Amino acid sequence: MYIYLYNFAKGRQDLGQHLFLAWAGWVCTWTALLLFLLAIFNACAIISRFTRIAGETFGMLISVLFVQEAIKGLVSEFEIPKSEDPNSVKYQFQWLYTNGLLAIIFSFGLLYTSLRSRRARSWLYGTGQIRSFIADYGVPLMVVVWTALSFSVPSKTPSGVPRRLISPLLWESESLYHWTVIKDMGKVPPVYILAAFIPAVMIAGLYFFDHSVASQLAQQKEFNLKNPSAYHYDIFLLGFMTLLCGLIGLPPSNGVLPQSPMHSKALAVLKRQFIKRKMVESANESIKRKASNSEIYDKMQNVFIEIDNSPNTTAIVKELKDLQEAVMSVENGGENTNEKFDPEKHIDACLPVRVNEQRVSNLLQSLLLAASICAMPLIKLIPTSVLWGYFAYMAIDSLPGNQFWERILLLFVLPGRRYKVLEKVHASFVESVPYRSIAIFTVFQIIYFLVCFGVTWIPIAGILFPVPFFLLIAIRQHILPKLFHPHHLRELDAAEYEEIVGGPSRHPSFNLRDSDSVGSENNEGEVTVCDAEILDEMTTSRGELKVRNHSFNEERRTQVYPGE
Amino acid sequence: MYIYLYNFAKGRQDLGQHLFLAWAGWVCTWTALLLFLLAIFNACAIISRFTRIAGETFGMLISVLFVQEAIKGLVSEFEIPKSEDPNSVKYQFQWLYTNGLLAIIFSFGLLYTSLRSRRARSWLYGTGQIRSFIADYGVPLMVVVWTALSFSVPSKTPSGVPRRLISPLLWESESLYHWTVIKDMGKVPPVYILAAFIPAVMIAGLYFFDHSVASQLAQQKEFNLKNPSAYHYDIFLLGFMTLLCGLIGLPPSNGVLPQSPMHSKALAVLKRQFIKRKMVESANESIKRKASNSEIYDKMQNVFIEIDNSPNTTAIVKELKDLQEAVMSVENGGENTNEKFDPEKHIDACLPVRVNEQRVSNLLQSLLLAASICAMPLIKLIPTSVLWGYFAYMAIDSLPGNQFWERILLLFVLPGRRYKVLEKVHASFVESVPYRSIAIFTVFQIIYFLVCFGVTWIPIAGILFPVPFFLLIAIRQHILPKLFHPHHLRELDAAEYEEIVGGPSRHPSFNLRDSDSVGSENNEGEVTVCDAEILDEMTTSRGELKVRNHSFNEERRTQVYPGE
Repeated sequence: MYIYLYNFAKGRQDLGQHLFLAWAGWVCTWTALLLFLLAIFNACAIISRFTRIAGETFGMLISVLFVQEAIKGLVSEFEIPKSEDPNSVKYQFQWLYTNGLLAIIFSFGLLYTSLRSRRARSWLYGTGQIRSFIADYGVPLMVVVWTALSFSVPSKTPSGVPRRLISPLLWESESLYHWTVIKDMGKVPPVYILAAFIPAVMIAGLYFFDHSVASQLAQQKEFNLKNPSAYHYDIFLLGFMTLLCGLIGLPPSNGVLPQSPMHSKALAVLKRQFIKRKMVESANESIKRKASNSEIYDKMQNVFIEIDNSPNTTAIVKELKDLQEAVMSVENGGENTNEKFDPEKHIDACLPVRVNEQRVSNLLQSLLLAASICAMPLIKLIPTSVLWGYFAYMAIDSLPGNQFWERILLLFVLPGRRYKVLEKVHASFVESVPYRSIAIFTVFQIIYFLVCFGVTWIPIAGILFPVPFFLLIAIRQHILPKLFHPHHLRELDAAEYEEIVGGPSRHPSFNLRDSDSVGSENNEGEVTVCDAEILDEMTTSRGELKVRNHSFNEERRTQVYPGE
Repeated sequence: MYIYLYNFAKGRQDLGQHLFLAWAGWVCTWTALLLFLLAIFNACAIISRFTRIAGETFGMLISVLFVQEAIKGLVSEFEIPKSEDPNSVKYQFQWLYTNGLLAIIFSFGLLYTSLRSRRARSWLYGTGQIRSFIADYGVPLMVVVWTALSFSVPSKTPSGVPRRLISPLLWESESLYHWTVIKDMGKVPPVYILAAFIPAVMIAGLYFFDHSVASQLAQQKEFNLKNPSAYHYDIFLLGFMTLLCGLIGLPPSNGVLPQSPMHSKALAVLKRQFIKRKMVESANESIKRKASNSEIYDKMQNVFIEIDNSPNTTAIVKELKDLQEAVMSVENGGENTNEKFDPEKHIDACLPVRVNEQRVSNLLQSLLLAASICAMPLIKLIPTSVLWGYFAYMAIDSLPGNQFWERILLLFVLPGRRYKVLEKVHASFVESVPYRSIAIFTVFQIIYFLVCFGVTWIPIAGILFPVPFFLLIAIRQHILPKLFHPHHLRELDAAEYEEIVGGPSRHPSFNLRDSDSVGSENNEGEVTVCDAEILDEMTTSRGELKVRNHSFNEERRTQVYPGE
């Protein structure tokens, strides 16, 4: 968005480069105003209309734009930058070519090593701490490693090969100018002040959209948050921050994907998964001894209290109320006598995942971000090519878990190979929706996506690229339900990421428990499955908690090939 | 071996570079003589003593030497070759550096893409033909692709960047000299003719060793070859070829690993696996109808004949005799009445895999090899860096299936993570041998391997590097049985590659059938699992047929942690 604004301002005589930041300040002012209005009129009430299709199409656009930026950047490493002196040594042909080759090595090196390190948690080798450390900090670590490697170029290469990030330091005049942007805002011609309203609508819309999706993901039902949501308050704060950024000439930022859901995920207490396992064991044991349901519940509660170590037992009992009801209802409900109490199913549904709800870590994160400005001399050491690799990494890493992407891939699987998809862990729509509907829905989404992507290529009107996404919400609301079976649409555009355990190991239990039991048979207590590893398995990289569907019956399975 | 010979000859005044080929001719003559003697005295009788440990340690040495060569080669791309003029343009610092960077890109590019293309057969995407083509020809294809890419360097780079293979063409004087090597053999001083006996012993030993291991693998029991083995005849032919190569100054070659077992594998008829499935189905059906055993057998035979389309039915009945006996014995054996007829187990054991035994393809292979000399002008286009990548690829690709390698990896898995190994498909020793024994055996093998590797670094005596391998056979025969339990030793140094289906999907049947059944549930006949894909699953990359162990009981499983 800011690139569009800059390209627009650059071309106007009475605006130009020197008034760009001041004009952007006006854009931010308008944006802030719009956000305030959205907050006041509690527009967040329509949050439920922001469904998967709009969010995932937008996510895909971001990915494609990032890849595009990475490729453009990599190509630019072979070219002389426009604003530079083409006669300097580093822009002689051989050094320019060397710079390009180094860029290929660094960017692909960073991309490959980062993608590998992300999966470190499930490696076979190394202790749990080392694996967790690599999985959590592998990507920044790789940036450091490749930056260090970039200093291993022979001393005979001229300085500037490889190219490194360019940014003014905090105390240089270019940085100090930012404090005076507010003074320049009066110099912007009135017509441009009014024109700033158009990009402001786009930014406000994007923020509202992005913020809603991120909020939904960060506050999923499965996280069992206790503090209520306060969307209008959040939007109000966002408006205030946008205004502040605009006045000091900074691009405003938003707590976007994926960090918000990642934050919730990081605060989730996973000890519960182990508790769950113990509770299932205890329940199964009780059932074998033909205990009554209330006895079963008492046993399970004891297990829970024993492991949880929480001082307040009554709070726990309250928390487990749902579970208690589930256990009891099976006994009392005279009609449901056939439906036996299944510990796995019921405990899974009722046992809360707990999130440590606090704001300290967010605050620390923001403070560290501010502190990073002082680290500018260090950041300037990073080669630009490492940045291109990082762009590509971010784009590629965001794809798994994006159902739009998964459905695109499914289109390329020949009918005879589809059983392979069913064998693996897969999203529920693969089994519950006929292939024809999946294909039509996906093709529609691809075409719509290409339109959105096409808009970004239009020189000045490209700034309107968020408009198709706003339209998509209306299309989803009013047109799609007429084209697709409501049940299929619900599955394809589901609120939750439902996942089904793959075919051949059609074991009716949660994978986690499987792996545990193999280990514990041999050596109870020594099995090292760390919390974060389980959490990785339970969430998509988009930050969604996966809902595991255990008991998909064969009838639904055959729907994949409805022709049969 | 030839590098050792060359380095030795180069340093002698009365031998020197110009008499090297003549002297090597003498080495080959001695080698041929020794091979003739081995053939005459039928030394191949001791073939059974060449167990897995010696073969795999040797395979590991080859891998490490290849990686060493790849690294040396890659480093040399940054250096000026000794024999060249250091003042030429392409050896100026910046072009030398460019050459090195290109080498990194090409070699790692080839390595990565080759490793990926090898796994093409199990890809989800693309038709069976495309996947098979990529899996079969992906590596040469990648050599072509990267060679083509190497011509995309800008025209301003001097010729010779990137470096390409150097080899005289067939009609150049350097090649024509080879026809006169035999004349020079008389000029070699008598003392060197005698000294040539020492490397000849090594080469003959290596050939005998290598040939035996390759023969064993190519003629595994599971292939059900009909033509008998003729090891002494093979060795005799090998001696003859060695003599011929020596006299025309070529390094002699041997039908070594992995191409010989790969050839058998390529000729195996896999339709049998489908027949087997059908037969199991038919048998199960008959059992349900409580048919007598002879009826069951008749049914199965009919299925077999029906699918096989072979004109000669009596031959088939003969072939199925084992199976018939197995079916009948269950009925007749009065004592074994408890042991019911299990179609899967018995058919698996008795149904032959058939290999199309012929020599046409071998002959064609050799003729194509001869023809490739004429393709020298094309081969010279390949950049040397692609060759280094190919070396690394060959080394890395040979590791999976090498149990020595698998055991080394197992040493690095912490006790708490070992359940993950059990979950996957794994070799049987993991379950049947206590971890302590595996560790001691592997550490012994690593130390022995390091000794062997160390010998190759000794300047002239390095030529004796095969000696430790000959010793290892004696050590395996006489010392190892005293240190290890005979049962464990048999498992660790097994003749067959026994494999066990992993933990959680502890389904009692063969994986192949699993995947089939999922597919066929939905859409019988359209499932595309090609023969080669099944074969890939059934063999290690070393060319060994894996024996699938279905019914490992829990008792054996717990032996992994004998302390429990």
